[in-house]
Amino acid sequence: MDLRRRGTNLPKMGDFNQSVILEAIRRSREGLSRTELVEATGLSAQTITNITRRLLSEGLIEEAGRMIQGPGKPRTTLRLNAASRLSIGVHLDPAMMTFVLLDLTGAVLERSTTRMPADDARRIIAAMAESVEDLIERSQLDRAAITGIGVATPGPLDAARGTVIDPPKLHSWHRVPLRDALQEATGLSVTLEKDTTSAAVAELWTGDHPPDGSFLFVYLGIGIGTALVLDGAVVRGASHNAGEVGHIIVDPEGPECTCGQRGCVEVVCTPQAIVERAEHAGVLADDRVGSDAESVDARFTELCDRAAGGDRDASAVLETAVHHLAVLISALTNMLDIDRVVLGGPFWSRLSAISLSRLPTLLDRSSATRAVRDLPVRGTVIGDDVAAVGAGCVVLDEVLTPRAAALFLDS
Amino acid sequence: MDLRRRGTNLPKMGDFNQSVILEAIRRSREGLSRTELVEATGLSAQTITNITRRLLSEGLIEEAGRMIQGPGKPRTTLRLNAASRLSIGVHLDPAMMTFVLLDLTGAVLERSTTRMPADDARRIIAAMAESVEDLIERSQLDRAAITGIGVATPGPLDAARGTVIDPPKLHSWHRVPLRDALQEATGLSVTLEKDTTSAAVAELWTGDHPPDGSFLFVYLGIGIGTALVLDGAVVRGASHNAGEVGHIIVDPEGPECTCGQRGCVEVVCTPQAIVERAEHAGVLADDRVGSDAESVDARFTELCDRAAGGDRDASAVLETAVHHLAVLISALTNMLDIDRVVLGGPFWSRLSAISLSRLPTLLDRSSATRAVRDLPVRGTVIGDDVAAVGAGCVVLDEVLTPRAAALFLDS
Repeated sequence: MDLRRRGTNLPKMGDFNQSVILEAIRRSREGLSRTELVEATGLSAQTITNITRRLLSEGLIEEAGRMIQGPGKPRTTLRLNAASRLSIGVHLDPAMMTFVLLDLTGAVLERSTTRMPADDARRIIAAMAESVEDLIERSQLDRAAITGIGVATPGPLDAARGTVIDPPKLHSWHRVPLRDALQEATGLSVTLEKDTTSAAVAELWTGDHPPDGSFLFVYLGIGIGTALVLDGAVVRGASHNAGEVGHIIVDPEGPECTCGQRGCVEVVCTPQAIVERAEHAGVLADDRVGSDAESVDARFTELCDRAAGGDRDASAVLETAVHHLAVLISALTNMLDIDRVVLGGPFWSRLSAISLSRLPTLLDRSSATRAVRDLPVRGTVIGDDVAAVGAGCVVLDEVLTPRAAALFLDS
Repeated sequence: MDLRRRGTNLPKMGDFNQSVILEAIRRSREGLSRTELVEATGLSAQTITNITRRLLSEGLIEEAGRMIQGPGKPRTTLRLNAASRLSIGVHLDPAMMTFVLLDLTGAVLERSTTRMPADDARRIIAAMAESVEDLIERSQLDRAAITGIGVATPGPLDAARGTVIDPPKLHSWHRVPLRDALQEATGLSVTLEKDTTSAAVAELWTGDHPPDGSFLFVYLGIGIGTALVLDGAVVRGASHNAGEVGHIIVDPEGPECTCGQRGCVEVVCTPQAIVERAEHAGVLADDRVGSDAESVDARFTELCDRAAGGDRDASAVLETAVHHLAVLISALTNMLDIDRVVLGGPFWSRLSAISLSRLPTLLDRSSATRAVRDLPVRGTVIGDDVAAVGAGCVVLDEVLTPRAAALFLDS
C-alpha cells in the first residue's frame, strides 16, 4: 500500500486542460470562439490555440462558421463534431431493456426497448446484442465511430469480473460474465455501471450543475437506490457499488424485512411495497396474481392515476410513501450536507407531482442545517430513460469529461 | 452560477507539487533524500531540486545529515523543520475544553484541559484565550511561529459567521461570534471546524491511509457524529456540516425522539441514551441527579468498567448499543461503499474492546458488497484528544497537504 500522493506534470496538465476545453465546448451547445474559451477556462490564448488545433486534427471538434461581434476580426466558432464519436447505452431492468444510441454531445439519436426474455442468460445476452445491432443499423451511422457500450444494471455488481452479483428476478445471473459475453457478441468494448450511478452521470451531463457542485440522486426503480455527486464527479465507491440504501430504516412501524430489521426502504418505499400497502388498505383490490415487475408496474400506475384523479385514499398511500422517502433522503442529506437533491428513474415521473409538492417541506423540517441553508429538490431533466442515457454517457465520459484524478502521475 | 470547470496552469501545478513534496517528507518521519523524493512523487529530479531549494529558503524543511547507501555520492536527507510552523488545536466539548500545541509534523508539544465555565459566552472565550496563552508560554516557543488556532466544536456550525448554531448545554451560544471573539482575544487567526471533521483530519494526518483512500470516521462523543474521507480528502459538505447522523433510525423499538421519530441514533446510541437504558434495565441504580455531561460521563465509565469486570448485564447493555451502532454504520457504508471504518472520539476508548470484537461480524452480515469485498474496522490511532489534535492539523493542513482543488485556475 503506497501512502504517498503522486505529483503532476506538463503532459498530465495538457490532457486535463484538453478535456476542460472539450467540456466547455460541449456545454455551450452553440459553440464557443477561442476568445470565449480563454474566458471560460482561465487558460491562456496560446494554450487554447494549441489544444484546439489538436482537437480539430483529431476530428473531435469542428469550425462552425464565423461570428461578427463589434469591431475587429470575426471569430470562428468551435463546436463538437457530434458524429465523430458515438456510444450505446443499455439499461438492464427486470421488466424492460432500453437501448439508446448517443452522439458525442450526449444527444439520443436512436432508441428502442424490448422485453427481457425469460430467465436465461444466453438468450438475454443474444437479445441485447441483437438490439444493439438493430440500433446501429437503423441509425445508418459509421459503426467505427462507436466508442463502446455502457450497460446500466441493478447493483451490487462485481466490477472486476464484469457481472451483476444478484440481480432481482434473474437468479442465474451471478455466474454470468455479462461484460465479457456482450463484448464478444458485439465486438464492442463494454462497461458495466450501476443503474443509479448511470442516472447520476446522465444528470451531470445534461443538467445545469456547477462543475464543483454536489447532489444526491435518488433513483426510483423496481428498487430504490441513490448516487452521490461531489465536486462535480460521481462517487462510485470502493467496489463501484455506492448507493445501496435498501436497508436504511424509514418506518419503525413498517413491515419486517428479509434482513431481520423492520421498516427498511426495501419493504416500505419500493413500488412493490407501495402497491402492497395500497392492497392491504383496500385502496387497490387484493387480487393481484404475481409480484413480478410487470404487474407491480401496472398496479403502481393505477394507484398514481387514481391519486391524480382525486381519489383521496390513493393519495394518502402515496403521501405516506413520500413521507418515508423523505426520512431516507434526510438521513443522507444531513450526513452528506450536499447542495441539492435530484430524483429520477423509471418510476419517478408517476410520483413527481406529489413528491415535488411535499418533499421540500418535509426535508426542510428535518434538515440539520436549516438555520444556514436551504436544500433545493427537483426532478431529473431526463425522462424515464435516464439510466440508459447515463450508461451511454459513461462511455463518452472517457473521451470528454475533465477529472482531477487524471492530473496525478501514475505510480 | 458558472457551470464551467476551470483549467490548470504551471504556477498552480508548482504549488500542488510543492505540497506533494512536503507531504511525502512529513510522512517519511525519518526524512527523504532528493532521489527518494523522485521515486515517491513521480516528479523529475529537476522539479524536486527546484522546489526543495525554495522550501529550504522558506525554512519549512531542513537538511538533516547525509546517508551513505552503496557506492556514489552520499545523499542529503531532507526533513520537516518541525519548529518552523506551529498550530494550536482546541476542542470545545460540553464537559471539557482540551488544548494542544502542535509542531509542523503534527506532534503534540503541549497539552492542557480545563472545565467549561458556566454558560456564559464571555467567560468561556476569556478562559479559552487564557489557556491558549498558558500553552504558548509553557512551550517557550516563538509565538510568531504559530500559524493559527483551530477550534473543534459540535455541529451544526455557521461557517460564514464563525459560530456554533446550537451547541448542546450552551444555549446562548448561537448568538456568539466564537471565531471573531477568540481571534480578537488572542490576536491569532482562528478556524472553526466540526469536531467530527477535525477528528477525521487527525486520523488522515496520523494514520496509514493511502492518499486516494476512503474511510468513514465514526465519532463517539456526547453526541454521535460521522465524517467522510474520500480520495484522501475530508468531505466537509456544502455548509461545512457533513456528518449529522443523530436522526437516522437504528432501533424501531427504541424510545421516541424529539424529532418525532422513534429509535434515532440520538436516543439510542449516545452515552446518555446508553446510560438511561442501563438505568431502566436496573443495571445502574436509577438515582442519577442530573443528565449533565459530567454525570453521564461518570455513569458511562461505571457501566464500561463493570462490563470489563465480567458483569453480564452491563455487557448486554453495551452489546445492544454496539448492535445499534452497527445499524447506523451499515446504512452509511452501504450507501458510500467506502474502504474502511475508523472509530474514535472521547467515548471511544471505553467502548473499543467490545466494539472491535462485535462490529466486524455485524457489519459483514449486513454488507451489500460482502460478495466482492470486506470492510476493515479499526479504532483511531490517536487517543481521546483526537478532535483537538485534528483542529490543530486543520491549521497545518493549509501549509502542507496537497489538495487537487488547488490545481484549478481561479474564476
